[in-house]
Amino acid sequence: MLSAEIIISDLNKIRKQAPLIHNITNYVVMNVTANAQLSIGASPVMAHALEEVEDMTGLASALVINIGTLSPAWVQAMIRAIKRAEAKKIPVVLDPVGAGATTYRTKTASQLLQAGPVAIIRGNASEIRALVETNAQTKGVDSLEVSGAAIEAGRQLSSKYASTVSISGPVDYIIKGAQTIAVYNGHPLMPRVTGLGCTATALTAAFAAVNHDYFQAAAGAMAIMGIAGELAGESCLGPASFEISFRDWLYRLSDKEIFARLKIR
Amino acid sequence: MLSAEIIISDLNKIRKQAPLIHNITNYVVMNVTANAQLSIGASPVMAHALEEVEDMTGLASALVINIGTLSPAWVQAMIRAIKRAEAKKIPVVLDPVGAGATTYRTKTASQLLQAGPVAIIRGNASEIRALVETNAQTKGVDSLEVSGAAIEAGRQLSSKYASTVSISGPVDYIIKGAQTIAVYNGHPLMPRVTGLGCTATALTAAFAAVNHDYFQAAAGAMAIMGIAGELAGESCLGPASFEISFRDWLYRLSDKEIFARLKIR
Amino acid sequence: MLSAEIIISDLNKIRKQAPLIHNITNYVVMNVTANAQLSIGASPVMAHALEEVEDMTGLASALVINIGTLSPAWVQAMIRAIKRAEAKKIPVVLDPVGAGATTYRTKTASQLLQAGPVAIIRGNASEIRALVETNAQTKGVDSLEVSGAAIEAGRQLSSKYASTVSISGPVDYIIKGAQTIAVYNGHPLMPRVTGLGCTATALTAAFAAVNHDYFQAAAGAMAIMGIAGELAGESCLGPASFEISFRDWLYRLSDKEIFARLKIR
Repeated sequence: MLSAEIIISDLNKIRKQAPLIHNITNYVVMNVTANAQLSIGASPVMAHALEEVEDMTGLASALVINIGTLSPAWVQAMIRAIKRAEAKKIPVVLDPVGAGATTYRTKTASQLLQAGPVAIIRGNASEIRALVETNAQTKGVDSLEVSGAAIEAGRQLSSKYASTVSISGPVDYIIKGAQTIAVYNGHPLMPRVTGLGCTATALTAAFAAVNHDYFQAAAGAMAIMGIAGELAGESCLGPASFEISFRDWLYRLSDKEIFARLKIR
Repeated sequence: MLSAEIIISDLNKIRKQAPLIHNITNYVVMNVTANAQLSIGASPVMAHALEEVEDMTGLASALVINIGTLSPAWVQAMIRAIKRAEAKKIPVVLDPVGAGATTYRTKTASQLLQAGPVAIIRGNASEIRALVETNAQTKGVDSLEVSGAAIEAGRQLSSKYASTVSISGPVDYIIKGAQTIAVYNGHPLMPRVTGLGCTATALTAAFAAVNHDYFQAAAGAMAIMGIAGELAGESCLGPASFEISFRDWLYRLSDKEIFARLKIR
Repeated sequence: MLSAEIIISDLNKIRKQAPLIHNITNYVVMNVTANAQLSIGASPVMAHALEEVEDMTGLASALVINIGTLSPAWVQAMIRAIKRAEAKKIPVVLDPVGAGATTYRTKTASQLLQAGPVAIIRGNASEIRALVETNAQTKGVDSLEVSGAAIEAGRQLSSKYASTVSISGPVDYIIKGAQTIAVYNGHPLMPRVTGLGCTATALTAAFAAVNHDYFQAAAGAMAIMGIAGELAGESCLGPASFEISFRDWLYRLSDKEIFARLKIR
């Protein structure tokens, strides 16, 4: 299903093609996710005005929709962009940040899923559960262990929307129908840096732009995240120097580190 | 009134409980203050839409209101959040960024103070003065020396709103009624990093979430800021490497550094 | 036209006067550009609400207008700020981010240029071309080589609006009427960090605040950018450590490095 060779091939395509990724994302992480995409070799653009959102999606090779600091005007723009992405047949990656925390977020995430095809839904366990369980509870936007219940929720979600579902946690699970890839790469400091979940989403879109097997693309992005995280964790003093080293490693990663460290099943 | 033991106890509570802090703050610092809260052990969330702001405050243990890039829709959300915080009896920490610079900011800060109880008002000397003096002048959002006039303004403000007032500067002054704590920790590079005042506010909310003696909480947060700043200042090359090291130290701080360095009166 | 002595004199004025720069800029780079201005010695403020935008411009020594994440309400505020800057006779620096990518951006950039005098237009080659050529194409907000066509477009733009035009690329070209300065300083990692174009704009405004020969100011800012970039490039591991070192060098730069490294023609 996935191998180091495929991930390396995707990464090289990103670096060579520099695909334009249109991001409609939250204020907290805009800088961080743009930098992650640049580091990996993609070309980020941010635009949310109704006046231009469709034009910008029309130029892009993938679309990121992230509801981290949503408001009605932005949701309207997201819907337009998703419809344009559908018409243009480019992948949409949805990050339902904080779904389950408030009714507005949970409802909006569902509304976006119904606006058009979403290639990949990427969230943490509580967010994914909130999209299928009516009584799920989220504590803010924190990541949580990925339990069997979350994997089952991911499977339901994948089936309902014909999407790949990518659940991040100490172990990441990427689900498409009956298939599952588990990614064991990562580092415990990652949840101590804001926006690393959103970064996973941003990198997932870069991979989906060059590999239209979205199940592979989603898993490859999580593997690269995890490997860069492990490398960063070896030489940092805390979450800030970790974040700097992580971004450097997204840029520096070579075949050697990917072959040596990839831990997927 | 305050000791290293109390500060250490508060810090351990934050690290253990990971209190959820709801931040309605400015675009410039969202990433920085979320990261500061994560580094110290708290759990930040940002949400400003009228559709969800009360629900999010309802999940939180403290609320940050920061007017750094305000606009009418955001002010309306801030007022709703303050009222929800009042109903839920959680502390509100207000940062009147740029009060005195424009009439709109000064008026909005006053409007927010009247919307519900504010546990702690945290600003620089010119902002605090602007909230009580009709003819005070602010130059942008810069910090200034904390003069006797600022302390007197802080005392009036504390009395008028039954709030703790925390004034940052080369020496920080925390005021509640007739009581004052002066914090001598800090580093001259701190004003060269954008959003460190807002970071002080964000950390103050984390302390207030676990210590309902808000006078202690406000002073403890400023002491931790100052100590982390001193440690960062010892190994940096300029404001950017200072900022990275400062955030690492928020995560790394142990009892030893706090005991060795705390300078309060 | 320009010498190391003039650049050093401008830099010292910025450090001594700490001019207040009013920035109406995009969400992605607000933190980064505020920090760049602080590092170089200027005093940034961000404000976009119609209720205060004119008051804030009224306090400032220069105005930055950056359309990176524009929307109609923000454009309205930008126009008001430009008119206030005209009345107050302070320089406006316009960054037409993404002009050419969408019709909305290209039209808005033109609308802003007609709202009042713009001292300096600073963009990359494709953005500058989009402002004079009706069929120019931009791929997102990426920088491109500065071709002869871009220089010619810059000259037309300079003539039409009586502005200095500053085009960034591997070599930067600063154009005013028939005059041109080429800046050869810089580093290949610079396009791998988001917002360094916007940072160039932010620093250009700081220089324009203290040197009303805007042709000199624009070129001096690009030279400082490039020199700090070269120094940062000598000790970094990737784009993130580059960004940290770059900001440190903006703060650390002394006459020595400027004399030794300046490469302009």
